[in-house]
Amino acid sequence: MNFKLIIRFISILIIITSVFMLTAIPFALYFKEPTSVSFIKIALFGTISGLVGLYITKNSPKNLGRKDGFLLVSLSWIIISAFGSLPYVVIAHLSFTDAFFETMSGFTTTGASILTNIEALPKSLLFWRSLTHWLGGMGIIVLTVAILPMLGIGGIKLIKAEAPGPSMEKISPRITETAKYLWLAYIVLSAIETILLLLGGMDLFNALTHTFGTMATGGFSPKNASVAYFHSAYIDWVIIVFMFIAGANFSIHFKLLTGKFRAINDEELKAYTLIVILAVLIVTLDNLSIYSRFFKSLRYSAFQVVSIMTTTGYVTADYSKWNGLAKTVLFILMFIGGCAGSTGGSIKVIRIYTLLKQAVNELKYNIHPKGVFSLTINGQSLRKNLIFSVSGFFFLYIATFMFVALLVSSFGIDLLTSLGASAATLGNIGPGFGKVGPVSNYAWLPIPVKWILSFAMLTGRLEIYTVFVLFSPSFWKK
Amino acid sequence: MNFKLIIRFISILIIITSVFMLTAIPFALYFKEPTSVSFIKIALFGTISGLVGLYITKNSPKNLGRKDGFLLVSLSWIIISAFGSLPYVVIAHLSFTDAFFETMSGFTTTGASILTNIEALPKSLLFWRSLTHWLGGMGIIVLTVAILPMLGIGGIKLIKAEAPGPSMEKISPRITETAKYLWLAYIVLSAIETILLLLGGMDLFNALTHTFGTMATGGFSPKNASVAYFHSAYIDWVIIVFMFIAGANFSIHFKLLTGKFRAINDEELKAYTLIVILAVLIVTLDNLSIYSRFFKSLRYSAFQVVSIMTTTGYVTADYSKWNGLAKTVLFILMFIGGCAGSTGGSIKVIRIYTLLKQAVNELKYNIHPKGVFSLTINGQSLRKNLIFSVSGFFFLYIATFMFVALLVSSFGIDLLTSLGASAATLGNIGPGFGKVGPVSNYAWLPIPVKWILSFAMLTGRLEIYTVFVLFSPSFWKK
Repeated sequence: MNFKLIIRFISILIIITSVFMLTAIPFALYFKEPTSVSFIKIALFGTISGLVGLYITKNSPKNLGRKDGFLLVSLSWIIISAFGSLPYVVIAHLSFTDAFFETMSGFTTTGASILTNIEALPKSLLFWRSLTHWLGGMGIIVLTVAILPMLGIGGIKLIKAEAPGPSMEKISPRITETAKYLWLAYIVLSAIETILLLLGGMDLFNALTHTFGTMATGGFSPKNASVAYFHSAYIDWVIIVFMFIAGANFSIHFKLLTGKFRAINDEELKAYTLIVILAVLIVTLDNLSIYSRFFKSLRYSAFQVVSIMTTTGYVTADYSKWNGLAKTVLFILMFIGGCAGSTGGSIKVIRIYTLLKQAVNELKYNIHPKGVFSLTINGQSLRKNLIFSVSGFFFLYIATFMFVALLVSSFGIDLLTSLGASAATLGNIGPGFGKVGPVSNYAWLPIPVKWILSFAMLTGRLEIYTVFVLFSPSFWKK
Repeated sequence: MNFKLIIRFISILIIITSVFMLTAIPFALYFKEPTSVSFIKIALFGTISGLVGLYITKNSPKNLGRKDGFLLVSLSWIIISAFGSLPYVVIAHLSFTDAFFETMSGFTTTGASILTNIEALPKSLLFWRSLTHWLGGMGIIVLTVAILPMLGIGGIKLIKAEAPGPSMEKISPRITETAKYLWLAYIVLSAIETILLLLGGMDLFNALTHTFGTMATGGFSPKNASVAYFHSAYIDWVIIVFMFIAGANFSIHFKLLTGKFRAINDEELKAYTLIVILAVLIVTLDNLSIYSRFFKSLRYSAFQVVSIMTTTGYVTADYSKWNGLAKTVLFILMFIGGCAGSTGGSIKVIRIYTLLKQAVNELKYNIHPKGVFSLTINGQSLRKNLIFSVSGFFFLYIATFMFVALLVSSFGIDLLTSLGASAATLGNIGPGFGKVGPVSNYAWLPIPVKWILSFAMLTGRLEIYTVFVLFSPSFWKK
C-alpha cells in the first residue's frame, strides 16, 4: 500500500478545501458576523496541515495501485468531512458527532440535517454548509465518471463514454481532461441557475446556497422551511428544472453545451425522463384531492418527485401528509435515484434499466432456453461480467439498506423511520419517512445512530463496494 | 401449445380435489352441521366436470412442451382455486372475490384471510379451508423440487439433489418417484405433528387443521386468535418446531427419515438454522422489555420469528406492538423465507445465501481483478448462468414487491400497509404490517386490491417467472 501517496493526495485536498472555506468570509463581512477569524484560523490550520503532509510525503513513489485507489477515495471523504466539520464546532459549538454528520451529509450531497433551527446560525456558516454540497458534487462527478469505472465498481463502466483506459498508473492526463470538461459544465450550469434565481428575487446569498444545493442534488437550504420559504412558483420551477438537470449525466450536459445535440439520444436519459414524467403525472393526479387545482398539484408534486428521484431532498410540501399512492411512488423513487455520472445518488437509473432489460431477457430465455439474448444499451452489447456487477450491486444495495435499518432500529427507532432513515442516507437523499420525514430532521437521533447514518451516506455515495472492500481481510493482505 | 393435455391434467387435479373435499363430511356429521349436501354437490360437480374434461381430451397428444408446462402450472393454481372457493360461496355466502382470495391464500399456503369472525363458520368449512393449505403444500413440494427446476426458474436448480433430467418429455417415471418420496416425508411429519398436538390436549379437528397450517407453512387457524387461543407453551413449541421443519427442504427430511443422516450436512440448512437462531436471539433480547422473563420472551419471540421466516403466519403475539428492532427483524425475514424444496415461500434462503457468497466474490474481484473466484455450494461449483438466474430472480422479486405495493396504494391504502400487504402476499406469509398486521385481516380491502393480492400470492408461489412469462408476447408466438 502506498500510504505516502495517499496522504499526499489528501493533503492537497485539504489545502483546496481550506482555500474554498475562505469564500465564506465575504459573507461574514457583509452580514457583519464575527466569524471571519474562525474561518481564517481553520483554513490556516488546514493549509499548514496540508503543507506538512506534502512535506513529509515529498519522496513518495508516484504509482497509485488499485487498493490505494479504494483507500484514497474512502479516506478522503472521511478526512475532508472531519476537517470540514471544524467550523460547526468552533462557530456554532456543535458536538463533533453532529458536526461530522452535517459535514458528511454536505460532502456526500445527502442533505440530511441535525440542525433544528437553521436560521439561528450565522449566514457565513450556512454558506460553508451549502458549499460542502457544491464541492462534494464536484468530487462525485469526477469520482463516478473517471475514477470508479477504473476500479470496476458495480458495473458503472456502463457510462464509459468519458471513461479513460483501464490502468490506474496513467491516471493524470485523461482524467484531468475529463474532469475539466465536466466541471466546466457543472460551473456553467451553476452560474445559469444562480442568475435565474437572482432574477426571481433571491438575494445573492440565497441564490448561491440554493444553487449549490440543487446542482449537487444535496438539499441543504439556509431556510428552516427549505424552498417552501420563498412561496414562489417561479423559484420552484427553476429549481425543479435544475434538479432534473443535476440528476442527469454531466458528460451529456458538456456535449450539449458544446453543441453536440446528438448526445441527447441516450437510453438512460430517456428512461430517466420517462420515469420522472410518469411519477409526476401519477402523484399530481393523486394529489388533486389535496391541492384541488391541477397546476397547483403539478407544481408541488413535480417538486417533491424530482427532488426525491434526483436525491436532492429540497421540500416545498409535507409529503408525509400525502396519500398512500403518492408516498409509495416517492418510496420507490428513493431506490432508483439519478443517472450515472450525475451528482445524484441511490442505485441509479442505468442499473435499474439494465436489470429490467436483463429480466426481460431471462423471461425470453425461460421460454426459449436455447435462444441467445444479448443485452444492448445505446447500441453496445453488454458483457456478462458487467451485468453480474450490476446485479451484484443491486443485491448489496438492498442488503445494506436492510442492515442499516436493522442497526438503526436496534436503538429503539420505529420500523418506518428506520427504513426511511436508511433509504434516505444510503441513497444520499436527505429527508425520509416517519420521524425523519420532510418536516422533521435527524437531530433527535441517538449519537450511535448518527454515526451509523454517516457511514451509510459515505457507503452509498461511494457506490458501496468502494467502502466494503476495506472490510475484506484480503484487502489488507500483501 | 398442447391445450388438450393441459385441460386433461387440470381435469385430473379437479377430480382429486373433489375427492379430498369429501373429507370435510365426517366433520360436518360429527359437529351436526348441515353442510354435507353442499360438499357432496360441489364434489360431484367437480368430478363430473373433470370426467367431461378427460373425455373431450382423450385423444390429446402425450407430449408436454416447455410452454405447456408454464401454462399448466399457472392455470392449475387458478382453476383449482376457483373450484375450491365454491364451498365458501355456497355454504358461507361469501362473495366470489372473497372466496377466491381465501382459497388462493389457502392453496398458495399464504394464510392471509378475509374472514372477520372465523369461529362463526361451520367447522367442516374451516376443515376444507385448512385442507387447501395441506393440498397446496403437496403441490408446492412437487412443483419446486421436480417441475420448476426443469423449467429452469430463478436458479432453483441449485437444489437439484432430487431433480430429474432436463427434458420435459420424459417427466413421468422420475417425477412420480421423487414426488412419492417427498409426499411420504410430508405425510409422516404431518402424522407426527398431529399426534403431538393431540397429546397436548387439542381435539382431532384442531390438531389436524393446525397441522395442515403448519406443514404447509400456511397459517390458517380455525380460531380467531390463531394459535394464541390455546395458551399452551407445549403447543407453541410443537408448532415452532414443525414450522421450522416445514421451512426446510423436504428431500433432506426424506433422507433423514430413511436413516441417511449425512443429509443434514447441507449449506442451505445450516444458513437457515443460523438465521433463525440469530433472529430469535435478537428478538428475544429486544422483547425482554415487554415480556420481562427470558423464557416467556423466548417463547413468543421464537414463535413469531419462525412463523414469519418460514412464511407460515401463525401468531401468538401482536408483533405490531413490539419495538422497532423486533419489527425490523421480522420485516427483513419476510424477504428471506424458507429453504428451497420446502413449503415456505418468499425469496428462499439458498438464493440469499448464493447472492451473499457472490457479493463476497465481487468484493474479492474488485481487489484482485485478475483473480478467478468460483462460487461453491455443497462442494459443487455454480455455473455463471445459475448465478444470473438467481440475481435476476432477486431483482424481479423486489421489483414485483414494489409494483404490487404501488398498485395497492393506488386504492388509498397507506404506505406501510401497502408495503406490508405486498410483502406478506408475494412472500406467501399472511400477516403483514400496518392495517394488515397480525391482529388485523384483509377483509376491509377494496375488491380490486383483493384481486391484486390474489395475483401476488400466485406470482410469489410460482416463483415469479412462471407467471410473468405468460405476459410476454413471445410466449404466445408460434
